Amino acid sequence: MKKAVCLLSGGLDSSICLAWAKQRGFETYALSFDYGQRHSVELEAARRVAQAVGVEQHLTVQVDLRVFGGSALTSDEIAVPKGRDESAMSAGIPVTYVPARNTVFLSYALAWAEVLEASDIVIGVNAIDYSGYPDCRPEFIRAFETLANLATKAGVEGRMSLHVHAPLIELSKSGIIELGFKLGLDLGLTHSCYDPDESGYPCGECDSCLLRKKGFEAVKKKDPSLSRKR
Amino acid sequence: MKKAVCLLSGGLDSSICLAWAKQRGFETYALSFDYGQRHSVELEAARRVAQAVGVEQHLTVQVDLRVFGGSALTSDEIAVPKGRDESAMSAGIPVTYVPARNTVFLSYALAWAEVLEASDIVIGVNAIDYSGYPDCRPEFIRAFETLANLATKAGVEGRMSLHVHAPLIELSKSGIIELGFKLGLDLGLTHSCYDPDESGYPCGECDSCLLRKKGFEAVKKKDPSLSRKR
Repeated sequence: MKKAVCLLSGGLDSSICLAWAKQRGFETYALSFDYGQRHSVELEAARRVAQAVGVEQHLTVQVDLRVFGGSALTSDEIAVPKGRDESAMSAGIPVTYVPARNTVFLSYALAWAEVLEASDIVIGVNAIDYSGYPDCRPEFIRAFETLANLATKAGVEGRMSLHVHAPLIELSKSGIIELGFKLGLDLGLTHSCYDPDESGYPCGECDSCLLRKKGFEAVKKKDPSLSRKR
Repeated sequence: MKKAVCLLSGGLDSSICLAWAKQRGFETYALSFDYGQRHSVELEAARRVAQAVGVEQHLTVQVDLRVFGGSALTSDEIAVPKGRDESAMSAGIPVTYVPARNTVFLSYALAWAEVLEASDIVIGVNAIDYSGYPDCRPEFIRAFETLANLATKAGVEGRMSLHVHAPLIELSKSGIIELGFKLGLDLGLTHSCYDPDESGYPCGECDSCLLRKKGFEAVKKKDPSLSRKR
C-alpha cells in the first residue's frame, strides 16, 4: 500500500484532498501546522476530519511563522479584510497571504515523507479562487516536485520518485464542494473562516467565508458547518 | 544596500558564509534554527558569530524536526558515528543526515526574505566533504532558487528576483578554512562537533570533528576553537 502525506488545515479544500487520497487507496498520514494562525478552531477541525477519514497517523507540527510577521493571519497588526467583492479579492495578492507558507508546509511534508518512505504528498491548493497566491499555482507545485526529488536520499539513490498531487488545483469552489459530497465527507466537520468568533463560529464576511458561501450556493446545498451550535 | 538572509548554524561553513556576505557589502540578516539538535552549543556559537560579524538582525526559529525522527542529530535512538575514515564517511548518506533539513531551512529563509524584501539568501552547503547529503548539491540549490522565484509575491509581480548563494559549494574544507582566515573571521568562535561534551568541548571523533581537524592540518594552522577552556 502506498503512503501519502496529506497536508490538512481542517478547511474545505485540504479535508476534501485527504478524503480523495483515502479513496484513491493511499495509506494516509495527515500533517497539520500550528503556525500562529489566529484561530485554533482550524486545528480542531483538522482533528475531526482526520478521525472521520480514518488516517494512519495525524501529526501537528509547531511552526513559528509569527517571528517574521507580514500577514494578516500571523500578525496582530494587520486586519483581516471583510465584505470584499470578487474583483477586490482578485486584485493583487491579499494581506492574508502568509509569506512562503506553502513552501514551508511542503518542506515539512517532504521531511515526513522521507522518514515514512512515502512516495506521495497531497496538497489542497487551488489556482482559481485564490489566483493571487503565488504558491497555489501549478508551476509552483511542479517546481516543488522537482526540488523534492533532488532533495531526498531515496530520490538521489534512485529508489523512489516523489509525486506532489494537487487534485483541486484547477477546480472552482463549487467543483471542490461537489467532489467533497461525492467522496462522502461530512463537510460540516471542516472550517474555513479567517476570523471566527470565540466559539469558532464563522464570521461570514472574510474572503474565505464569502467564497465558501458562494460555492455552496452554486451547488444548491446548505453548508452543514453553519448548522453547528455557536 | 541589498539585504541578504544568511543561514547560520554557528559551524565553520555557515559562519564563513556570513562573513563572506558582509564583506560583499550585503546588509546581513542571520537566521538560526533550534531544531532539536543534540547540542545547543551550536546556537551559542551562532550568537557569538552573528555579533562578531555585525549583523543587522539575528533570529532563531524553533523548528520541530524531532517529531519526524530519522536522524542521529534529532533522534536519541540513533548514535552519532565515531572515528570513521574517509571511505566510510563517503559510503552513502550518513545517519547524521536530517531528512529535508536544508529544504526546511531554506523555506524559512525564503519567508523572512519575502517579509524583509531581501533579494539574496546565503547558505553554507558544500558538495565536496559531504557529498552524501542530497540537499548539499548544486542542482538542489538551483532547484530551490527556481522554486523561490515562483513562490513569492515579488517574484510573481516581477519586482524582484531571488538569488540563492552557496559560496562554499565547490570548496574543500581547507579551502573554506583559508577563506575564513582571509575574511578575518575568528574561527575560534565557531563550533562543528556533532557530539560535544557538557561544556561544549568537541569530541574530536565524529565526522564533523575529523573533517575540521583535517582542514586545519591542510592549511597548517591551529584550530583556535581547541584552545577554548573545557
